[in-house]
Amino acid sequence: MAKEKADLLKVTRRDEDYSRWYLDIVDRAKLAEDSGVRGCMIIRPEGFAIWEKMQQTLDAMFKETGHVNAYFPLFIPISYFSKEADHVSGFAKECAVVTHHRLKVSESGEITVDPEAELGEPLVVRPTSETIIWSAYRNWIQSYRDLPILLNQWANICRWELRTRPFLRTTEFLWQEGHTAHVTFDEAEIEARQMLEVYKTFVEQYLAIPVFAGRKTENEKFPGADHTYTIETMTQDRRAIQVGTSHHLGTTFSKAFDVTYLSAEGTQEYPFATSWGITTRLIGTLIMVHSDDQGFVCPPRIAPLQVIGVPIYRKDSEKEQVLTRFKELQEQFKAAGTFTFKVDSRDNLSPGFKFNDWELKGIPLRLEIGPRDLNNGTAVLVRRDTGEKINVAQSELEAQIKTLLEEIQTNLFKKAQEFQQQNMYFVETYEEFKVSLEQKSGFYLAYFDGSLDDEEKIKEETKATGRCIPFEPREVGKCFYTGRPTNQQVIFAKAY
Amino acid sequence: MAKEKADLLKVTRRDEDYSRWYLDIVDRAKLAEDSGVRGCMIIRPEGFAIWEKMQQTLDAMFKETGHVNAYFPLFIPISYFSKEADHVSGFAKECAVVTHHRLKVSESGEITVDPEAELGEPLVVRPTSETIIWSAYRNWIQSYRDLPILLNQWANICRWELRTRPFLRTTEFLWQEGHTAHVTFDEAEIEARQMLEVYKTFVEQYLAIPVFAGRKTENEKFPGADHTYTIETMTQDRRAIQVGTSHHLGTTFSKAFDVTYLSAEGTQEYPFATSWGITTRLIGTLIMVHSDDQGFVCPPRIAPLQVIGVPIYRKDSEKEQVLTRFKELQEQFKAAGTFTFKVDSRDNLSPGFKFNDWELKGIPLRLEIGPRDLNNGTAVLVRRDTGEKINVAQSELEAQIKTLLEEIQTNLFKKAQEFQQQNMYFVETYEEFKVSLEQKSGFYLAYFDGSLDDEEKIKEETKATGRCIPFEPREVGKCFYTGRPTNQQVIFAKAY
Repeated sequence: MAKEKADLLKVTRRDEDYSRWYLDIVDRAKLAEDSGVRGCMIIRPEGFAIWEKMQQTLDAMFKETGHVNAYFPLFIPISYFSKEADHVSGFAKECAVVTHHRLKVSESGEITVDPEAELGEPLVVRPTSETIIWSAYRNWIQSYRDLPILLNQWANICRWELRTRPFLRTTEFLWQEGHTAHVTFDEAEIEARQMLEVYKTFVEQYLAIPVFAGRKTENEKFPGADHTYTIETMTQDRRAIQVGTSHHLGTTFSKAFDVTYLSAEGTQEYPFATSWGITTRLIGTLIMVHSDDQGFVCPPRIAPLQVIGVPIYRKDSEKEQVLTRFKELQEQFKAAGTFTFKVDSRDNLSPGFKFNDWELKGIPLRLEIGPRDLNNGTAVLVRRDTGEKINVAQSELEAQIKTLLEEIQTNLFKKAQEFQQQNMYFVETYEEFKVSLEQKSGFYLAYFDGSLDDEEKIKEETKATGRCIPFEPREVGKCFYTGRPTNQQVIFAKAY
Repeated sequence: MAKEKADLLKVTRRDEDYSRWYLDIVDRAKLAEDSGVRGCMIIRPEGFAIWEKMQQTLDAMFKETGHVNAYFPLFIPISYFSKEADHVSGFAKECAVVTHHRLKVSESGEITVDPEAELGEPLVVRPTSETIIWSAYRNWIQSYRDLPILLNQWANICRWELRTRPFLRTTEFLWQEGHTAHVTFDEAEIEARQMLEVYKTFVEQYLAIPVFAGRKTENEKFPGADHTYTIETMTQDRRAIQVGTSHHLGTTFSKAFDVTYLSAEGTQEYPFATSWGITTRLIGTLIMVHSDDQGFVCPPRIAPLQVIGVPIYRKDSEKEQVLTRFKELQEQFKAAGTFTFKVDSRDNLSPGFKFNDWELKGIPLRLEIGPRDLNNGTAVLVRRDTGEKINVAQSELEAQIKTLLEEIQTNLFKKAQEFQQQNMYFVETYEEFKVSLEQKSGFYLAYFDGSLDDEEKIKEETKATGRCIPFEPREVGKCFYTGRPTNQQVIFAKAY
């Protein structure tokens, strides 16, 4: 194996440099790469295929719950942001702003912005679409009969982030944003909770990522929201990562954009709103939760390619026989349609190189067949999650693969769940929390009823934030910060 | 029926004001609407559902032909455009340019662009992605083994258009752009032709729109392309509309971005490129080709909703019985899964209003059942394309609907094709062409071998452009402009 080829297969170990490990996986599994544009990534075919599978699955779940898709403009006039002050001061300040609409070619052939083509009103590249969508809802909503509006948009979003990291935090990212309008507060509440539940189901069942679901603390909620729900999970360096959020927006945006409807009783009322979103960050989360020092690990149910076949041979006569057998299997598997399968027939690479290559890329199962297997009617299956090798009769392959893919899916979830439980602590006092957090990162559950200021102080002192207030009701205990009695518990952790 | 409701159902007649008619259809069928953002439209759920169906169908066809999807940044550094001069002078000048990355809130609460957050290098919102994609291909392509690259991207695009019209020409629009790289000129040629054929198949078989396929004239080809293929169709006001294009880019972009590969023979070579795209303009084309004075007409194979049920009743007792029957049918149709079906059970609207409403929205078939039908076991089907009413036994409904949907699809194609043939003329001299074009718009086929200048002059004098050079070989004739012998024929027409 040539040296440069070998380098392509190497990944920094997690315990050596976790951040470097993450970037290595993104790069070597060809999920994404830096573009020449600050903070913007290129999502490569291998990464985008995962996003497509996420989209298809979630989109079906959205439609199943009565939602339809639409598309709103990328550009939002700057004046729209003035209408909802919290929204802007909260996060919408770091945006890409379009100020001109023409380039010109100078006499020397250089291309510059045409100063004469300045826009009357600058346009903001959407950092989220509440303002432009609620501006449209003004025309859409007249009567209670026009409600509810259950709408979703798949779109690209731009937030000018100072420090970026592929998938986890990029200037441009892809997401979906649901924007609904309802007659009552309670109906919006049911919607916000329902969509959180949809996210939880999707993330747990397809991505094999166990999550904590709950409400955001005041300091962490969406700017302009009445309250925010979240699902959070734990990375392998025991930090928190926000996986998806669902906001009950109350009447913030209907009031800001003067949207009212005529009720059945003949009065003018403000409708209640929700919004909810997940992003390409989910791909980064997959890495952070499941992957290992051999590379990317992709749960079978979200893996675009589930099984890779690697033919083993030395002589040309063997090659032909082995490839013929693989071709037969490929047809058999395709006809059955229970999993996706490809054969790596590249003839300039050794089986060893291919093994590493596909492990790096996170393919859940590898199928090896060599000349001896042909004689014996056997094959070898290798699990990506455990490295275990399983000898199988070729006649059993289809059934075995199906079972193994399910086992891998279950195992990944279980492993991640155990890891979370091992790194979850209950703390009674703030002092205990600080000392413990310094020693070991993790999720810290504590009674907490502090103020916004208290949250800020905790963040300053420990870099940990309130990640979520779990839904499960608690007995009354003593707030770890204020000492007051409360039945509210909060998970604190350092977060990505 | 209240007056304002009735207005909602009205559409300007085509012969009264064709442009107004088009805008009325877009508005009343709720396909799209103006946003507060100059030249940007909101694609409403009814319109977006059509785009989704187009996407799904085309995406499957792209994958069937070996392509994968990826995603490249929205923003392109201005310097990238300097590398391919033709590209910019051709069309990339009217662009949205991002110059700043922060908003600030003034003391009075007004939101403005932060002058301190000016970008070092302005970013262009992509008007097409050749430059950013070929800049990435520089890293992707090292050896002949890395080729071909068969890639597609679904994305939003921005071109700062002076005069806009929903779907047909908007500042922001949605599209797909294929970008492929190949070892040889011929391989790229096969790809470019293949993708044009994919478009033609899709547009003719799903949109029921007959097209003329051919090569673009020099004046009309894509800036930077070796040559461009196009499919064109005729609107009901007998103008041309470009439906899709496929470009053989030669080595223009590999040279501009210095992309070379090591050939099997050990030499460094420039790969050959293609790019190809269709856009949300297809929805506008559907209107322009099929719709009528009653509203939108959507071909069954691309219609998100294919059959609408309208219950007919007067008394409450009748209502219950009729709705029960519809519910049964809905379950039956859903289980069969051969077509999409919904029941309009809004009880504040008359059947007459509903008929008009669904005609306006272009639903291919309407199913009516009333109390008398219940007794007789009958139903009425009404075709959107012809208005024909068909009495059917309820037991025959499923089979009849299936047949009728196919008939409607075929009929729409045939009608459009006949219309094209009726408005297609062959002209021998330029004088004849000018006189005839003044009297009647249409497609004018003529022998033509003129220069770029000749094309420009024809455009100036007649407002018609060379739309395409049909593929079919021709006998030698006399150029209608230069008088020289040539075997090249060109379709001239006024275009959208």
